[in-house]
Amino acid sequence: MSSSSRRAALRELLPAAGVDALLLTDLVNIRYLTGFTGSNAALLVHADGDSHSRLCTDGRYRVQAAAEVPDLDTVIDRPCALALVAWCREWGVDRLGFESDSVTVDGHAALVEAGGGVELHRAPGLVQHLRTVKDDGEIATLRAACAAGDAALADLMAAGGLRPGRTEWEVALDLESRMRDHGATGPAFETIVAAGVHSAVPHHSPTSAQLRAGDLVTLDFGALVDGYHSDMTRTVVLGPAAAWQRELYELVAAAQAAGRAALAPGTATSDVDEAARSVVDAAGRGAEFVHGLGHGVGLQIHEAPALARTGTGALAAGMVLTVEPGVYIEGRGGVRIEDTLVVRDGEPDLLTRTSKELLEL
Amino acid sequence: MSSSSRRAALRELLPAAGVDALLLTDLVNIRYLTGFTGSNAALLVHADGDSHSRLCTDGRYRVQAAAEVPDLDTVIDRPCALALVAWCREWGVDRLGFESDSVTVDGHAALVEAGGGVELHRAPGLVQHLRTVKDDGEIATLRAACAAGDAALADLMAAGGLRPGRTEWEVALDLESRMRDHGATGPAFETIVAAGVHSAVPHHSPTSAQLRAGDLVTLDFGALVDGYHSDMTRTVVLGPAAAWQRELYELVAAAQAAGRAALAPGTATSDVDEAARSVVDAAGRGAEFVHGLGHGVGLQIHEAPALARTGTGALAAGMVLTVEPGVYIEGRGGVRIEDTLVVRDGEPDLLTRTSKELLEL
Repeated sequence: MSSSSRRAALRELLPAAGVDALLLTDLVNIRYLTGFTGSNAALLVHADGDSHSRLCTDGRYRVQAAAEVPDLDTVIDRPCALALVAWCREWGVDRLGFESDSVTVDGHAALVEAGGGVELHRAPGLVQHLRTVKDDGEIATLRAACAAGDAALADLMAAGGLRPGRTEWEVALDLESRMRDHGATGPAFETIVAAGVHSAVPHHSPTSAQLRAGDLVTLDFGALVDGYHSDMTRTVVLGPAAAWQRELYELVAAAQAAGRAALAPGTATSDVDEAARSVVDAAGRGAEFVHGLGHGVGLQIHEAPALARTGTGALAAGMVLTVEPGVYIEGRGGVRIEDTLVVRDGEPDLLTRTSKELLEL
Repeated sequence: MSSSSRRAALRELLPAAGVDALLLTDLVNIRYLTGFTGSNAALLVHADGDSHSRLCTDGRYRVQAAAEVPDLDTVIDRPCALALVAWCREWGVDRLGFESDSVTVDGHAALVEAGGGVELHRAPGLVQHLRTVKDDGEIATLRAACAAGDAALADLMAAGGLRPGRTEWEVALDLESRMRDHGATGPAFETIVAAGVHSAVPHHSPTSAQLRAGDLVTLDFGALVDGYHSDMTRTVVLGPAAAWQRELYELVAAAQAAGRAALAPGTATSDVDEAARSVVDAAGRGAEFVHGLGHGVGLQIHEAPALARTGTGALAAGMVLTVEPGVYIEGRGGVRIEDTLVVRDGEPDLLTRTSKELLEL
């Protein structure tokens, strides 16, 4: 879908929001709507069409904005949001929506002062809502990002990179380097490598601790490709699995399979969470599954919708989501298994293809 | 300085802000005031003292909060800010300050709703202001972070790590890995390695481009140690420097020396910028020095004060700042030289100790 089609889709939401135009200041939303990747910009999407809409950035990005956004008039000024709001009355905007979920209270006060009487209306989450359903181009990019993660992990294991004596840091850097070899511009987030008792900490940061024989090792990592993020977790055992490790792994794998099976258009996000959580609950380990089941992923590593008990709304075809139950036994170890999938009318489309059999390395 | 002394210093600012208490929601400010390093918290600093103040976090951090913040009562609830504001009336708070430079418009509306009539007052930047002057413990940590950067670069050069044929990525990963070897928990920001024409782009991200003989190579990197960031830039030449490279280097080095020499308590931040910029201007290259001279550094890589033409306020002893002029010749190459220094009553204290002689490798 082109940037102009996305702006047209946004424009259709403006009447219900009761505004003549929407001021965008969130850079990820601006990238989605225009393709602009610079670090300073604001965008005015006018209900009357692109000919009335404007991108604003500063002089550092004049050439880049012309190349990335050839189909919108660009204003060169800074600060960008204040420059656009100052023109609103001239452009026939009386009621201006703004992203009240990211504009600060001080930022809002500055907009009011610069606006010369334009009415400012809270309009949160409109673009985040559009971004939940990915188009074919976005899915192709997410598939490439997930493939880079799969290939990096396969290379790491083929090279014997998961072995006793290596530190969590070494493994994390190795994975990140291999993702770059497979086309990533960088990691999608800080790579998690959690060995032994550390695997019981859901968001453990890698340390100089060495992997040891018998450890559960959780690897949670992703690749960044053209601004899109992949996200995958696998947990392996270094050596033959102890009975409790195998039992824990099989429980989480069953919960994860139940979560994946629940991914279908129309299903409430909270019901997807429940599908996986009920498996863990039935095993008496519900209190050790301490986070939500998953989240949308795209231009941000965490985006709408959330798959959680407190989640609202339902799934739609084209949403790209993680399914990542985990069970964490404090002081002993934990298992998390995570895939990224596309919701489809039939079966979901699995983007992260690495095996989920328990690996005893 | 202890966390409780920092809270006492903040408390002294509350009467001028016209509030009975301040609600902190910025996690960096909360870390500064309490030592708490978790990812979800709010803090109420009451004018009447610590016995009336409260930290709030959620159940995941119960144990961690007790260990890191033994000297404050902790409320376990979520969402944290709403939980604290709901108790304000009970705690005798009628006028509550909040961080209007980080609280969003929607976040503010939720606070108003939860506050049951407590008056909310904008109180931006109070903790950021306190944070500009570092105490001895902070300076010791920043010194260690800068030393890790120095040692990593020395190791890299000793190992021949800057040579034609290596990619920018390889050099960046190598530097980051060596900083970890010297005690960093990670890089302070995305390491910049910019070779050849890329050195003309101030914030170039490393690519698969190979370093080539004759290239200017700019390395801008830092180490993270106990939450504190170091920041240093050096530009080298691979092989004998061409005349234009040497001339450019000497110009930037002279500007950087002028900026460092201007660091003294009482000097306006804009005058420090001008001290360096006037050197570049006099050489007719002012238009190619496209950014500010420097910035405060501490718990964030960029923090107050800014050394820029538009900067306000003056320096004080104990501020830790970068001085980093750069001149960028589009399509050809650029030079940036950056140190991190402590403002002192006499000479500034240089934390980044790597030589600034032009290195021809």
